[in-house]
Amino acid sequence: MSDHRIIIVGAGLCGSMLAISLAQKGHKVSLYERRPDIRKKNQDAGRSINLALSSRGITALEAIGLKEEVYDMCIAMTGRMVHPLDKPGFLSPYSGRQGEYINSISRPGLNMLLLDKAESFDNVEINFDMACTDVDLENAEAVFINESNCKEHKVKGSIVIGSDGSASALRRSMMAKTNALMFNYSQQFLSHGYKELSISPDENGGFRLEKNALHIWPRGSFMIIALPNLDGSFTVTMFHPYKGSQGFNALNSPDKVREFFEQHYTDLIQYMPNYTEEFFNNPTGSLCTIKCYPWQAFGKTLLMGDAAHAVVPFYGQGMNASFEDVRVFSEVMDESGGNWAKTLEVFQERRAKNTNAIADLAIDNFYEMRDKVSDQLFIQKRKVEMELEQTYTDYFSKYSLVTFRPDLPYSEAMMQGRAQDEMLLQIVRDTPGMDLGQIYQRLKAIQTN
Amino acid sequence: MSDHRIIIVGAGLCGSMLAISLAQKGHKVSLYERRPDIRKKNQDAGRSINLALSSRGITALEAIGLKEEVYDMCIAMTGRMVHPLDKPGFLSPYSGRQGEYINSISRPGLNMLLLDKAESFDNVEINFDMACTDVDLENAEAVFINESNCKEHKVKGSIVIGSDGSASALRRSMMAKTNALMFNYSQQFLSHGYKELSISPDENGGFRLEKNALHIWPRGSFMIIALPNLDGSFTVTMFHPYKGSQGFNALNSPDKVREFFEQHYTDLIQYMPNYTEEFFNNPTGSLCTIKCYPWQAFGKTLLMGDAAHAVVPFYGQGMNASFEDVRVFSEVMDESGGNWAKTLEVFQERRAKNTNAIADLAIDNFYEMRDKVSDQLFIQKRKVEMELEQTYTDYFSKYSLVTFRPDLPYSEAMMQGRAQDEMLLQIVRDTPGMDLGQIYQRLKAIQTN
Repeated sequence: MSDHRIIIVGAGLCGSMLAISLAQKGHKVSLYERRPDIRKKNQDAGRSINLALSSRGITALEAIGLKEEVYDMCIAMTGRMVHPLDKPGFLSPYSGRQGEYINSISRPGLNMLLLDKAESFDNVEINFDMACTDVDLENAEAVFINESNCKEHKVKGSIVIGSDGSASALRRSMMAKTNALMFNYSQQFLSHGYKELSISPDENGGFRLEKNALHIWPRGSFMIIALPNLDGSFTVTMFHPYKGSQGFNALNSPDKVREFFEQHYTDLIQYMPNYTEEFFNNPTGSLCTIKCYPWQAFGKTLLMGDAAHAVVPFYGQGMNASFEDVRVFSEVMDESGGNWAKTLEVFQERRAKNTNAIADLAIDNFYEMRDKVSDQLFIQKRKVEMELEQTYTDYFSKYSLVTFRPDLPYSEAMMQGRAQDEMLLQIVRDTPGMDLGQIYQRLKAIQTN
Repeated sequence: MSDHRIIIVGAGLCGSMLAISLAQKGHKVSLYERRPDIRKKNQDAGRSINLALSSRGITALEAIGLKEEVYDMCIAMTGRMVHPLDKPGFLSPYSGRQGEYINSISRPGLNMLLLDKAESFDNVEINFDMACTDVDLENAEAVFINESNCKEHKVKGSIVIGSDGSASALRRSMMAKTNALMFNYSQQFLSHGYKELSISPDENGGFRLEKNALHIWPRGSFMIIALPNLDGSFTVTMFHPYKGSQGFNALNSPDKVREFFEQHYTDLIQYMPNYTEEFFNNPTGSLCTIKCYPWQAFGKTLLMGDAAHAVVPFYGQGMNASFEDVRVFSEVMDESGGNWAKTLEVFQERRAKNTNAIADLAIDNFYEMRDKVSDQLFIQKRKVEMELEQTYTDYFSKYSLVTFRPDLPYSEAMMQGRAQDEMLLQIVRDTPGMDLGQIYQRLKAIQTN
């Protein structure tokens, strides 16, 4: 075991997976987390927060040997169950192939599993209630405040990795050195926010809606989605503009909320008897995309996960992208033979163009989900895509390239997927009767370009 | 005179002009500046910093009654004097019309004039050595440290306006409230930096190069420019990549610098006997574009000038855009009848799309100046543009729309100018012999679309 120490700021999904990956390579790891230990104290006050886990995340979990344990926590979602306002619902599968689906998984549950695994290594120590206040980038020294006794701790490592989320303290230390690092940075909010509601299990503990689907109520300029939980409940998230006559800012009384839901979510409210209370009890969250570069400074500090690339949730890839960071970092470490400065340089260069791509794709998907999923042209295109995937094993739709092809970097999935989308939309619009084999040949032609 | 007080953070070019404009409307103004009074202490250690002043800036100066005073400080630059490496130099005029030129002006000189004027109003007080450390956005309360005695001062106003430059303290206070304000922000560095050098006057106090021009030595991926000063000197700025075998990072010895200049700036070094010393004595500056939105918070605080929109210097519009901010703000105030919240809202909405446009145009112009100005197709296009401007009084090239049309917002100048550029380049490439009248008709057609 090497005698240096790697400091990880943030023991969320990314940080705890990173600790495991580094520990498995024999590194000494000190993990610092601002919040209390979630295994001891339920901080979500009973709310079920779930996430979509798909192939990229699973591949990374497999690399650290946790694939099987995680499968037991998953509910397969084979497609989008679309609930239009005045028409019957329908299932839009995620893939035309068997075995290609995404999974609903509990965020705290997965985090606890990763923490347990990390803690099982002798060379990992985990410190909770430790809020990072500053990082000396050149000396790999991090400053923490112990939130239980307000004492300050300074810790020096070989390197410091910040996996401390979208409000990263390490990134703030980089921002403070903007000119020295020529630190490119952007934070861009959507004009929509989100609010979580819930559907409880039925009286027998069963699911009130189809279990194996991601449900969407698309309503043009806003929407609601719901993901299943193992206990029979669904976590419901409404994505909604702040402004306008029916925006979050205007929905300021129970009557207005009720009137709005009765008008737009007629079929949904029967499952949510307490939606008005939940609406006012639960906070409204904002949706922000964060990009920055460089991710590393002085060969001593590195950003990873949401700290480096916060994305909006509409491709279900936030956690998967962070897990993929860990897998790629592990590969780059192996290639770089112990040279940290080179590892950090190569990692950021290999990775940033891909996380930029998933950030852009996630914004595209916002418009697709709230608006286009119930559009006839789009439905026709998805139908052709399903037939293509059923017939040709080597055809992957844009969604499949992004979601089910961990061998393909996001940036390549984006380029190829967008070109396919453009061609397919043109075909279903202009030459709707085209033979499937001919469509396939056309798509193959742009793929090999 | 109204009994409220407007606090302005930053008494640079924008802040001191804003103070004058507000004072003229009868407002009580308190102006706070981090640095000492430049009128008492020369902070530039003898270096002449000059800027390009053009119609938008002049129109704003005229609105506060300072146009005539400023003219005496200006040196007209009627065009770009291009100095290719192995060919004779040539003048590329800025306009085909008489009287359309830009002006080289001393930055400290202009700032001193504006400070003198601001101070002449009974309702303006100016405080120097006062560094803003924080602004309470909701209560329009600013905190300053008096840098001469380290004492803290808190000042409450009706509103606080931050014209405190690209590293704005007020913007930092907005960043700290990112989620509450949904504060969109980006800072993007060019891969090039800059360094100032100088050409001193000749032995008779005369100009060693053509006085009435902006000189450019375009060298493909890098360049040098020079602007004249009233004392016969030129301020020389080299724009140069950081990286690469001949980048700033590699030019780390007098021998390497000498070898580089002898190879690339053969004709220029005769005027700069001390360039290697200057090269190592003067700092290397970085070039950053900053965009953000909103500019205002809670109807109580507002960003203006570089604090809201730092641009790279390649269109010579940084100061002009900031002065135009003041002019537009004055107009919006008059329209809004004393309602500050409305004034700030309308101002940011009217203005941000235009400063975004000049930011993008300035980056475009970087590539044009360092690379295209000596390209044959580009030279041919400029020739046609000059003929058009000489022949048709209502034709304005993109450069002229941006530079000589203060009646036209930047965003419109950008759209119209880019469409014209595309068409003109196509014409000189594909149908070089086309009749001028016919070209004019084609350009007019896209203009009216």
